[in-house]
Amino acid sequence: MRTTVGWQATGPTLRRAPLERRDLRPDDLAVRVDYCGVCHTDLHAVRAGAADGSGPRPLVPGHEFTGVVTETGTAVTRFRPGDPVAVGNIVDSCGTCAMCRIGQENFCHSFPTLTYGGTDRRDGSTTLGGYSREYVLGERFAYALPAALDPAAAAPLLCAGITVWEPLRALGAGPGTRVAVAGLGGLGHLAVKLAVALGADTSVISRSPDKAEDARRLGARELVVSTDPERLAAARERFDIVVDTVSAPHDLGAYLRLVALDGTLSHLGHLGPVTVETLDLLIGRKKLSSAGSGGRKGTAEMLAFCAEHGITADIELLPSARVNEALDRLDRGDVRHRFVLDLSDLDHSGLPDLGLSDPSDPDLRGPDRSGPQDPAAG
Amino acid sequence: MRTTVGWQATGPTLRRAPLERRDLRPDDLAVRVDYCGVCHTDLHAVRAGAADGSGPRPLVPGHEFTGVVTETGTAVTRFRPGDPVAVGNIVDSCGTCAMCRIGQENFCHSFPTLTYGGTDRRDGSTTLGGYSREYVLGERFAYALPAALDPAAAAPLLCAGITVWEPLRALGAGPGTRVAVAGLGGLGHLAVKLAVALGADTSVISRSPDKAEDARRLGARELVVSTDPERLAAARERFDIVVDTVSAPHDLGAYLRLVALDGTLSHLGHLGPVTVETLDLLIGRKKLSSAGSGGRKGTAEMLAFCAEHGITADIELLPSARVNEALDRLDRGDVRHRFVLDLSDLDHSGLPDLGLSDPSDPDLRGPDRSGPQDPAAG
Repeated sequence: MRTTVGWQATGPTLRRAPLERRDLRPDDLAVRVDYCGVCHTDLHAVRAGAADGSGPRPLVPGHEFTGVVTETGTAVTRFRPGDPVAVGNIVDSCGTCAMCRIGQENFCHSFPTLTYGGTDRRDGSTTLGGYSREYVLGERFAYALPAALDPAAAAPLLCAGITVWEPLRALGAGPGTRVAVAGLGGLGHLAVKLAVALGADTSVISRSPDKAEDARRLGARELVVSTDPERLAAARERFDIVVDTVSAPHDLGAYLRLVALDGTLSHLGHLGPVTVETLDLLIGRKKLSSAGSGGRKGTAEMLAFCAEHGITADIELLPSARVNEALDRLDRGDVRHRFVLDLSDLDHSGLPDLGLSDPSDPDLRGPDRSGPQDPAAG
Repeated sequence: MRTTVGWQATGPTLRRAPLERRDLRPDDLAVRVDYCGVCHTDLHAVRAGAADGSGPRPLVPGHEFTGVVTETGTAVTRFRPGDPVAVGNIVDSCGTCAMCRIGQENFCHSFPTLTYGGTDRRDGSTTLGGYSREYVLGERFAYALPAALDPAAAAPLLCAGITVWEPLRALGAGPGTRVAVAGLGGLGHLAVKLAVALGADTSVISRSPDKAEDARRLGARELVVSTDPERLAAARERFDIVVDTVSAPHDLGAYLRLVALDGTLSHLGHLGPVTVETLDLLIGRKKLSSAGSGGRKGTAEMLAFCAEHGITADIELLPSARVNEALDRLDRGDVRHRFVLDLSDLDHSGLPDLGLSDPSDPDLRGPDRSGPQDPAAG
């Protein structure tokens, strides 16, 4: 086994701990994790898992990260040591079912292997996530990180970004469509940027009028204040697509009333059961939909689109040692718009060295062991 | 006022009663009602209204009927006495809102005036439905009944038919799409006929294997027996559109699992709240939708399509005096596939004569007061 170090849940907080990674299989990459986004799913896994025992244990969160390939298995063809890569919330799938065959591995019929809290398909171990300095995965689920994208700010594209990208594409967001995004967190702010870049007439729905400037800065043309009955009524049936990224359970009726004839409310902010009044769907023949993460095809397309349009997340970059603070603040909604952890501080932990396999390789970029890989990223 | 006779709710049953109809306004038609379909909504209005007082009172049900124009107001332009017409569940709308302007009066922003239990927009009276020998309405919501369609079997097209037609069209049912219809009642059997005629690869979902022959006769290629776990599993994600016409509340998850990637479950069988697991939508990016009745544009298109393809409902025609028996049997699901009441028996009630306004008009077809208008309809 290989050893690394990461942030592991012990109760409701995370502590630095040594971790094991498997020895490389022929199709495996070892990735030095440089930057990992902090997703609501992480918060939920840490806190709910601690409160009621429902979360995966052992738990090392983190499923949207970027880094550099440090070592490749003997059968790897797409990557070399030194390549910048990105990894999302899936690291394996059956590869043979109808969904895998069309590149929607996120809907794999035998369930995709999640980046953390999943069960490895070959050895049955529980996967440990990207809040760590090294990750080992099969090359199928590593994506080449376009050079145009800042690696820290690109990390959230791999979960938040793809989760809004796939429904926007599937629902046809583009010129001539009207999109409204509810919630301006990690998912929401990327949904606005992506919808704008796709050419859709894009608005933001928020409870707070003070989001207006933020909405405009992201490219939206209007803020619909959902606590203002007059403005809500004026926005009735105005949007072909409403992207609902609000992470707490909430009434969907108010958003459905903003959806135009034959339009769709894409409910992305949380899992669990949702109840709607049939009449709220019936009047206007509206649709309620959902989506989550993406397949290899969509993820690669999204990264290329983001590189072309210069889209990354608006992030607050923190040394990974401040991960518990990040979770606390995320829980309070105190983030614009995504926390990203800089994992390089783990190199100073006194735990084992995490060097590249072959530092003499001229293609190798780094690592610079004295600090963040890319100081400009902050 | 004009007088007629109809079937009025007094408690959980209907009794023959004299009714008043308004004097004709300039844009009004008087219609001799010949045939009226028996819809689940009628059953619910009669029984629930009696049980808990929630239903409209006074109540004369009936919102899918055909008949003959007997008299026209001074400003009527589209109809003459003697014209065969059809009327659905809407008899008026604001005419000026965005939905009315695009021919979706069923979604009128100030709510359409329902054919019964509605509130007349001009005099505030409660509308009384088509279980009566005469109906008076503005010409906007009367449809010319194509000569190719049997008037008794065409009556259910005006509610059951249009309710499945609009979602099938909006969701793109046609060649290359796979449609499954759950439930083979009034809505379901018409959904099968319409989907087949639209060119969709059409199947039926039913709890009973004994529906297989019926399904085939209607043009479906397969029956998926929903109580057979193996056949359900084999049909996973097989359909682009699942039309759910089951009239009792039920779990939508089982149907959602039959929906293909980016497909839609169109939930049409009943009103009230529905709860779905977000994961059942998320996995496969599926959509839950609904629809109900139709606008003037869609209704006229549906009637033309049915005339072209020879589509009417499979009905059991009963003299209107057996209306309570029809409701009882509908409540037990004992109907293939729609009851239609023959209102001509009301002429023998001893209540006022309901003659045409001008029996000497050479365009006038009838009425034949001695029996059903079209003996072949039974």
